[in-house]
Amino acid sequence: MKLASLKTGGRDGTLIIVSSDLTRAVVVADIASTLQFALDNWPDVSSGLTGVANAMESGTVENEFPFDPADCAAPLPRSFHWVDGSAYVNHVELVRKARGAKMPESFWREPLVYQGGSDDFLGPRDDIVVASEAFGIDMESETAVITGDVPMGTRAADAGGYIQLLMILNDVSLRNLIPGELAKGFGFYQSKPSTAFSPVAVTPDELGDGFKNGVFNHPLKTQLNGELVGEPECNVDMTFNFHQLIEHVTRTRRLGAGTIIGSGTVSNYDRSRGSSCLAEKRMLETIEHGEPVTPFMAYGDRVRVEMLDGNGNSIFGAIDQTVTKS
Amino acid sequence: MKLASLKTGGRDGTLIIVSSDLTRAVVVADIASTLQFALDNWPDVSSGLTGVANAMESGTVENEFPFDPADCAAPLPRSFHWVDGSAYVNHVELVRKARGAKMPESFWREPLVYQGGSDDFLGPRDDIVVASEAFGIDMESETAVITGDVPMGTRAADAGGYIQLLMILNDVSLRNLIPGELAKGFGFYQSKPSTAFSPVAVTPDELGDGFKNGVFNHPLKTQLNGELVGEPECNVDMTFNFHQLIEHVTRTRRLGAGTIIGSGTVSNYDRSRGSSCLAEKRMLETIEHGEPVTPFMAYGDRVRVEMLDGNGNSIFGAIDQTVTKS
Repeated sequence: MKLASLKTGGRDGTLIIVSSDLTRAVVVADIASTLQFALDNWPDVSSGLTGVANAMESGTVENEFPFDPADCAAPLPRSFHWVDGSAYVNHVELVRKARGAKMPESFWREPLVYQGGSDDFLGPRDDIVVASEAFGIDMESETAVITGDVPMGTRAADAGGYIQLLMILNDVSLRNLIPGELAKGFGFYQSKPSTAFSPVAVTPDELGDGFKNGVFNHPLKTQLNGELVGEPECNVDMTFNFHQLIEHVTRTRRLGAGTIIGSGTVSNYDRSRGSSCLAEKRMLETIEHGEPVTPFMAYGDRVRVEMLDGNGNSIFGAIDQTVTKS
Repeated sequence: MKLASLKTGGRDGTLIIVSSDLTRAVVVADIASTLQFALDNWPDVSSGLTGVANAMESGTVENEFPFDPADCAAPLPRSFHWVDGSAYVNHVELVRKARGAKMPESFWREPLVYQGGSDDFLGPRDDIVVASEAFGIDMESETAVITGDVPMGTRAADAGGYIQLLMILNDVSLRNLIPGELAKGFGFYQSKPSTAFSPVAVTPDELGDGFKNGVFNHPLKTQLNGELVGEPECNVDMTFNFHQLIEHVTRTRRLGAGTIIGSGTVSNYDRSRGSSCLAEKRMLETIEHGEPVTPFMAYGDRVRVEMLDGNGNSIFGAIDQTVTKS
């Protein structure tokens, strides 16, 4: 089942079910008016939603309309909890290496996470509005899961059942604000503006083996102005899978329904796969040439993030955003 | 006007208006069923809510019932954005001093903030549930504002009008998890479990001069098992007022209605005022005696946080919580 939120209808949007091939959609207001409502009441509404999705695939749904990602907010236009991991530790290792710092050994054993702004997500085709190019505007292409209610102290072995939906995202980062912010010791805030999500969120069963044991089994493709930035495999070099991330984030708290957990920038040791952000590309250039060659994004630049299945079909639809001045 | 949320009615509670003396309450479902709904639609609903509040003060409201903070969730039982400042920089300076580290000069010029968990707030009388006393369980007594929608790039001079409501809170902290987490460089996560809020949220006009120019003008009182921990003045040694905090947090993003901004631990240089957390008390002991004497909280301990006005009346009602094992 694929779910999305139209921008119309209020701050939480209007829930729609989207056909598997992303061409058609239908409003399901009689079952759940918003995705947050659906997640809040998942045991009561999921079978009804699945019924509509199945009818849609067999062509027996009334009031269908053509699906257009440009009409969509993020699947959750706002959320009560957005926590982003750094599960591809080789990416973190590289960041450190570029600035001549050794990464603590513990980073391989315990996940790094930060909590991101969740009151103002961007839709898949929304502009990335930034006050200054000098902030160092970058994309970070990632995968994510949306959970139901998860108890405190959940173990990785039990975590799979709490994953309701899957997405991809662009964790927009302002690179030149990061060093100053991290130096203060409290983590990211100004350096992580609104995050953008894929047009649709998808139930794990829809991916089959494409999502297994808390890992996505497809490459994630990032393009800038039509040029490939990278296409690393999500299932390669992922140090912590989503089950392990759930164990980590529930150590001292519960998670409310609709919590979004991100993988962090997808990154492979195999550099021929490219990168999921410009910072990584610049770090590799720095290590090789002593300084970066690739600039960060400029106003007018267009970033596209997409995951294709084995048959070349888009699973979540494309994030396709233009950088603009505020 | 004073507003609260009953625990009944769903994940976002049931909005009630509470009498100024905190003795009586009334449901206002015909105007706004939840506080989040009220904040989402503030221009449309605030005059209606004020009308009920005024009628309540003049004793002409029907269906009143006795107000009991034990029936309350946090005013916002969950929120889309909870960002906590560290506006009392002398507290930060002290933390550093206790571990022999100098605080960067820039901390006096630019606010420190971190984003806290907002999907699972505690009500004013809810237990603080922690898996282990070894985590170093501490209170942090703070003040907070709730904003409406705030544009990106808001200046401090224009920020006052975006503050809709005021609260006090207990930013529960797990001290022994903090050093390891901060060492990783991404800020707090496991070390900051669910935050507890006062029974009611109050419009700024209700405080008169008690809230002016983005500063609270009353002391904030913290008690542990009936003993005073501290009663520092909120308007003394506050390096950044709430208007300045709003400027800081909107530099690169908008704030959605219902964003909660915290002051950080209230702290005065005048040590006779005591502290708003045990960590500060322990740091002062460490500086004086070489090691802390006061232990962190244990199971069964009871923490109470309250702000009284000039006449000794409770403005927000008391946060009164017991530490229990999960």
